[in-house]
Amino acid sequence: MKICVVGTGRVGGTLGQRWAQGGHQVSFGSRDPKAEKVHKLLAQCGPNARADDWRDAAAGSDVIVYAAPWPVAKSVLDTLGPLAGKVLVDCTNPLTADFTGLDLGYSTSAGERIAEWSPGARVVKAFNNVSSAIMGNPVFGEQRATMFYCGDDREAKSTVHSLAAELGFDPVDAGPLKIARYLEPFAMLYIQLAVKEGWGSHCAFHLLHR
Amino acid sequence: MKICVVGTGRVGGTLGQRWAQGGHQVSFGSRDPKAEKVHKLLAQCGPNARADDWRDAAAGSDVIVYAAPWPVAKSVLDTLGPLAGKVLVDCTNPLTADFTGLDLGYSTSAGERIAEWSPGARVVKAFNNVSSAIMGNPVFGEQRATMFYCGDDREAKSTVHSLAAELGFDPVDAGPLKIARYLEPFAMLYIQLAVKEGWGSHCAFHLLHR
Repeated sequence: MKICVVGTGRVGGTLGQRWAQGGHQVSFGSRDPKAEKVHKLLAQCGPNARADDWRDAAAGSDVIVYAAPWPVAKSVLDTLGPLAGKVLVDCTNPLTADFTGLDLGYSTSAGERIAEWSPGARVVKAFNNVSSAIMGNPVFGEQRATMFYCGDDREAKSTVHSLAAELGFDPVDAGPLKIARYLEPFAMLYIQLAVKEGWGSHCAFHLLHR
Repeated sequence: MKICVVGTGRVGGTLGQRWAQGGHQVSFGSRDPKAEKVHKLLAQCGPNARADDWRDAAAGSDVIVYAAPWPVAKSVLDTLGPLAGKVLVDCTNPLTADFTGLDLGYSTSAGERIAEWSPGARVVKAFNNVSSAIMGNPVFGEQRATMFYCGDDREAKSTVHSLAAELGFDPVDAGPLKIARYLEPFAMLYIQLAVKEGWGSHCAFHLLHR
């Protein structure tokens, strides 16, 4: 699969590296694709990864994974060109500038806003609710971290489901895109536990069932 | 411990029954303590449980567990008498009347509102994020369901921690009371999975760690 990962930070870098190593063609979209940091990332990824400016990275990709910061989401999406029909995975949380909360309320979500800003794109909210350390390795002995995702397009969700499963996640469909209103606060809970309550970045949720 | 459980529905009934069977003195607060349904519940609980009107049930209790519906919370709390110094456990989610969402935004929470309405009470948000089936039995083979709780009073949280552990939960402190802003949407995610996505009431979250 041709996957464009927008963002070369911890989340984007980890996801892109693992998918490239798994045999997908990964193009990182970067503000500065020649930067030293990007060069290092590509070296870790091996031959299946490249980096480009945002627009060129997105061109020809089947799946676009938005893993850049929330505050620049609209301006970056605007540069990507038409996204109609593309699978667009939204990994963001709409954190306020001081990182203490979310800047959108229950009547909408970053996922829904991103869908509004990307007419026709098949948006899936995913990879927003665990650390990059867990994306790097979601396996805990016999258990796997659960990756909750949501979206309104069944086929797009199926694609994201497979991509998450390939990383070792136990992927769980949480419903339509508006469930991003819950997955985003869910991520805030995760951040609270990891950062403030001392659990660190190697914790994750697992959905038990009997 | 003397525990007042306000509400005799599935959540309150299950919690109260299990604590009574575990040796605590449980007084259920009910609008109609002589009702057939309450009588049956008491028979299941054994000798450690009784039922009273809300005010009498709360009198003399160390811990008050609010497990009645959100829309009547203020009026019921007003009848309980002064709550200063009491541990008050809030199990509610502020569902809208049509059960499709939450009626409070990220700038507050049911937990915080309940604290405002109960001057001096040491409010802990807990038992709002799994089904009563899980409260009845939180053990999944080698795993235990995690019970996230939050509040501003360390001692009150320690009490709630013990009460959850006695039921078989793996209790996890999620921080100050304002984290109810995340635990409430977290419960919405749980409800979505259980009701809409086919997982049923025997699913639960477990916090993995390595």
